[in-house]
Amino acid sequence: MKKIEELKWDSKGLIPAVVQDASTGEVLTVAYMNRESLAKTREIGETVFWSRSRQEFWHKGETSGHFQKIVSVMADCDLDALVVRVTPVGPACHTGARSCFFETVEGFSEDKKQ
Amino acid sequence: MKKIEELKWDSKGLIPAVVQDASTGEVLTVAYMNRESLAKTREIGETVFWSRSRQEFWHKGETSGHFQKIVSVMADCDLDALVVRVTPVGPACHTGARSCFFETVEGFSEDKKQ
Repeated sequence: MKKIEELKWDSKGLIPAVVQDASTGEVLTVAYMNRESLAKTREIGETVFWSRSRQEFWHKGETSGHFQKIVSVMADCDLDALVVRVTPVGPACHTGARSCFFETVEGFSEDKKQ
Repeated sequence: MKKIEELKWDSKGLIPAVVQDASTGEVLTVAYMNRESLAKTREIGETVFWSRSRQEFWHKGETSGHFQKIVSVMADCDLDALVVRVTPVGPACHTGARSCFFETVEGFSEDKKQ
């Protein structure tokens, strides 16, 4: 059991958060949290990120209604990354896709198992 | 379909790679790749990261034998994060754990569903 204060925040005070659908295991998005957004996440039980582009808190779903309800938050062995397991209320992606990860990278695909 | 060159690399030339077990959906680790390590990954069909601490290529399994065979690589809508689905040959974590994500963060757990 680790405290928020024990996590390793990068030079900008951020940690990457891998958001995963707790039911399906699908990776929905990678976003960033700072101490305060992780504390807010804990407080309200929904994901709150730090928007690097807008430099402000980003309570996922605040405008779209597509909240992500927290199931668990785990840190890795280095304490410098998080897996946030959620129950999503609607799509994770601003494009309307369920997951943000829909772009195949050339040369890698399910069709070309190596 | 996106080319490696189209991905958005950060100021250090890196992109976070979420490594996921293709069979179970478990998130195994978060590591970083640069253009060259992603190209090597494609070439050999196993994960090759860029070690930020050692500033060198890190072919996962090279010393432990715990290689990660590539199943697919997907980028997100912003092209600034990757999900790398793999078939792991042994544990992902240097501690011997199957996944690096075994540390519960205080106040969040499967026991405290919100």
